[in-house]
Amino acid sequence: MNKKGLAILMRTRMRPNDPPKLSLSLLTNELNQRLPNSQGNQSSGRTVEQASAEGNKKLNTEREFELVRESMHLAISMNKTEVLDDALDDFSAGYFSLESENRQRLLLLLAKEYDLNRTQVRELLKQYLGLEMPSGENAQSSGLEEEALLSAFYRIERNLRQSLKPMYEVLFERLNTHPGGLRFLSILREDILSILAEQNIASMRALDSYLKEKLSTWLSPAALELHQITWDDPASLLEKIVAYEAVHPISNLIDLKRRLGVGRRCFGYLHPAIPGEPLVFIEVALLKNVAQTVQEVLWDNPPIPECNATCALFYSISSTQPGLSGINLGKFLIKRVITLVKRDMPHISTFATLSPIPGFMQWLLAKFASQLKLAEAADMSQSSAEGSDSTFWENILETEEEKALLDSSVGIAAGKNGMEVMLNLLTSLHYEWTNSTNLLPVLKPPLMRLCARYLLQEKKRGKALDSVANFHLQNGAMVERLNWMADRSEKGLRQSGGIMVNYVYRPENIEEYAHSYFSKGQIHASAELHQDVKLSKELAGRAD
Amino acid sequence: MNKKGLAILMRTRMRPNDPPKLSLSLLTNELNQRLPNSQGNQSSGRTVEQASAEGNKKLNTEREFELVRESMHLAISMNKTEVLDDALDDFSAGYFSLESENRQRLLLLLAKEYDLNRTQVRELLKQYLGLEMPSGENAQSSGLEEEALLSAFYRIERNLRQSLKPMYEVLFERLNTHPGGLRFLSILREDILSILAEQNIASMRALDSYLKEKLSTWLSPAALELHQITWDDPASLLEKIVAYEAVHPISNLIDLKRRLGVGRRCFGYLHPAIPGEPLVFIEVALLKNVAQTVQEVLWDNPPIPECNATCALFYSISSTQPGLSGINLGKFLIKRVITLVKRDMPHISTFATLSPIPGFMQWLLAKFASQLKLAEAADMSQSSAEGSDSTFWENILETEEEKALLDSSVGIAAGKNGMEVMLNLLTSLHYEWTNSTNLLPVLKPPLMRLCARYLLQEKKRGKALDSVANFHLQNGAMVERLNWMADRSEKGLRQSGGIMVNYVYRPENIEEYAHSYFSKGQIHASAELHQDVKLSKELAGRAD
Repeated sequence: MNKKGLAILMRTRMRPNDPPKLSLSLLTNELNQRLPNSQGNQSSGRTVEQASAEGNKKLNTEREFELVRESMHLAISMNKTEVLDDALDDFSAGYFSLESENRQRLLLLLAKEYDLNRTQVRELLKQYLGLEMPSGENAQSSGLEEEALLSAFYRIERNLRQSLKPMYEVLFERLNTHPGGLRFLSILREDILSILAEQNIASMRALDSYLKEKLSTWLSPAALELHQITWDDPASLLEKIVAYEAVHPISNLIDLKRRLGVGRRCFGYLHPAIPGEPLVFIEVALLKNVAQTVQEVLWDNPPIPECNATCALFYSISSTQPGLSGINLGKFLIKRVITLVKRDMPHISTFATLSPIPGFMQWLLAKFASQLKLAEAADMSQSSAEGSDSTFWENILETEEEKALLDSSVGIAAGKNGMEVMLNLLTSLHYEWTNSTNLLPVLKPPLMRLCARYLLQEKKRGKALDSVANFHLQNGAMVERLNWMADRSEKGLRQSGGIMVNYVYRPENIEEYAHSYFSKGQIHASAELHQDVKLSKELAGRAD
Repeated sequence: MNKKGLAILMRTRMRPNDPPKLSLSLLTNELNQRLPNSQGNQSSGRTVEQASAEGNKKLNTEREFELVRESMHLAISMNKTEVLDDALDDFSAGYFSLESENRQRLLLLLAKEYDLNRTQVRELLKQYLGLEMPSGENAQSSGLEEEALLSAFYRIERNLRQSLKPMYEVLFERLNTHPGGLRFLSILREDILSILAEQNIASMRALDSYLKEKLSTWLSPAALELHQITWDDPASLLEKIVAYEAVHPISNLIDLKRRLGVGRRCFGYLHPAIPGEPLVFIEVALLKNVAQTVQEVLWDNPPIPECNATCALFYSISSTQPGLSGINLGKFLIKRVITLVKRDMPHISTFATLSPIPGFMQWLLAKFASQLKLAEAADMSQSSAEGSDSTFWENILETEEEKALLDSSVGIAAGKNGMEVMLNLLTSLHYEWTNSTNLLPVLKPPLMRLCARYLLQEKKRGKALDSVANFHLQNGAMVERLNWMADRSEKGLRQSGGIMVNYVYRPENIEEYAHSYFSKGQIHASAELHQDVKLSKELAGRAD
């Protein structure tokens, strides 16, 4: 495919949830035939016509909805025959033709009306409770008797298991074995998740958790194929890379070609049931040293001759299916890529990432805000009852840091104290502080120190609070180095004040680190970072 | 790969359940180190040494068993970490090293000791029964209240579902996501099935049905890749074709090459998690007409120039995984092959099979035996109470057939009546009847007639009794023609008296036929075969 061809391709907007192009189903054909020709006769009575067209549209949408609902019912209730394939095709084509509002109605209907049969469940429960428990103790009872008793248990447990499956399980199972069905299920889940983001509906949540469980058993990492993505791949696949690159957006055709060319690698995980579309992909740069900024990675072409490279830098991992969120598809990916790169290029000995820290600013600003509130409350309570909330109070900034900050921000940002000044600076609309030669050196020490603390110590249920950190740590990486002003893009400044982090994978430690992270929540880091965190701790200690 | 190479390869015996070659695990290394060197010192005290070696072997086997048991326990109970992969590898390597008896012990232990926690199940059941049933009727109750009520149901139902999963489910799930694990699970099931073939143990049956259900959801037909197998494929794959060809064994290298060469095709379904090994494969010959004998299909090379072919004949379908028995992997296979062949060779318009009738003789001989017993009983009861069992009596042979049979079998086979003579002829050790020019024309009419009846009318739970017939009918084929003396191999004579059958797939009728077979058990057949069956019926009618 030539440059022009792909350029044309790339002019069309690529939305992550573009419905796959399906051949027109019977359903939509039928609907089109029923639609009145609303395009003719443009000269007179326009408003009346418009109103009638709108009415018609509503009526048609309703009819369409009913047809899709009917096809969904067929796809669930039909006997298992070859004709079932048609029913499933009808349903998916119909679903894609629905507008967002009707999709939502349909999913709610699926969650509520195709739930389980609770009367039947109750009946079976009572039967089960009526069975005498088999006791392994009385070994003198004949083996045959126990076998018979167990048989009864196995039978009723199987029935119980069956009756506890919601009716929509049939639809999921059938779609899974149907060509294109897994992709469709991932889109269904995407829609379910977007409903849940707005409203917390119990039945919808149950639908989601059921579908998620099914999807994760069907998408076994062992069935994923590692594919090196190159410029020779079909444009339909490359288009997905452009559309889903989540870390460093691909700006143009030359950028894409560079990322697939000399000195760089791109690998994707493909699943046979979702052909032509990597579920997750990783971009690698071959470098002399572990990179500190995105510019080093993305600008030069090639970075250095491949034979001189000693470091493989993972600079971007993106997943393409919002509907598969929460399902760990990255398992093995990094390990397999390391194995592959080591085999092909034995001169490469360092495997590292240059990663964003997506949660740092959010955490820091929340911390500032809560401390400022505590300080205010303390100020007020000093008049009534002294220092009541002081246990939660924490001096986040060092005295020298605070002083330097207040000195250099005069005339730029206001604030009662260092924290308030810093909060105002960091939330300024155009990140003016990043252009100030005065402010940058003053902000660097506290930001770097607090960022190390965030990565190494802030946890949620024993796991690193930062999602990217958690991903690499559970894969067996360690936190190596923080890089100041490594990503000056709007997104980089907003998420992490421009700081990026290198995680390092040492092949000989991967298993051990993954294990101690998993079992004890231990986060391995370089000595330098540990030092930063120790400082933070002492400071916090002093404040008590 | 040259001829000599493959010839060497093929000299080693290929067993379907050869364990995959695994790198030596820690486990077996350890064992080898512990083993006393029983090979030295061969000169004196041989019997004592032998006895001690045997004792040692027993002890070692027992130790080995305990180690594998321990690794299985680890693989189930361990927290989910990267180290888990090692535990799973240890377990599978250990399992392969066990002898059949110990595998059986281990599987029984898995079935019994890693079952579900019935005390916990009871606890949850009681909680569930304590919940007030949500009633959709009282619409006046606030939506919020109902949501809260439903939430409670969803939560406890999820817990209940979880508690009803046997503990061994964890092992299955973990192996499924583990490289090589699916293949290992299929071998586990193969062993389970061979235990169940000898003993009907309730817990083992429960283990099997659970594993079977899991395997069929994991091996989605949508994830299977259709691959044309050619002489250019790796020997390791071709070896599988030789080992698993179940219909017409591949006799030598030239035979294999012929089946993959001009005028023939071979297609296999590959699953990404079981690489290099088709799960099922189908062999096709391109012919002028629908073949009547195996010789026509297998002997000429090529049968005719490919451009003159009008018929694609499926002459063999084999599955390679005994552990996947009962899981329909052939779904879509025939349909997809038809689509492929039609696209590449538009001059081909007929799609047919030349199939064995594996159950015909077994059914016929049982029929004869039971009728002879009835006749005997009737003879005896005639002296006491007349014709008590006559309702089950059926005249299987026509009068003329019986007469001709008795006339031409004089001096070859004895018997009171036609049926007894026929039974003796068909069960003769060397199938002498197939070499007798007198007997062949006499046996042909009743055998062909009864075979048509067997295929078109004998059913079990609404499905064709013959397993191959059932496979093709559920795929949407019709029964076209019976072929006399079409397979004179020992297997062919033993299974079906040498008769073979052509099933025909008419692309335009596939869906309709599959549907009517599934929903009404309707078997479509050519007019000629229907005529044969009608004769059989009239005969049975006359006997009443």
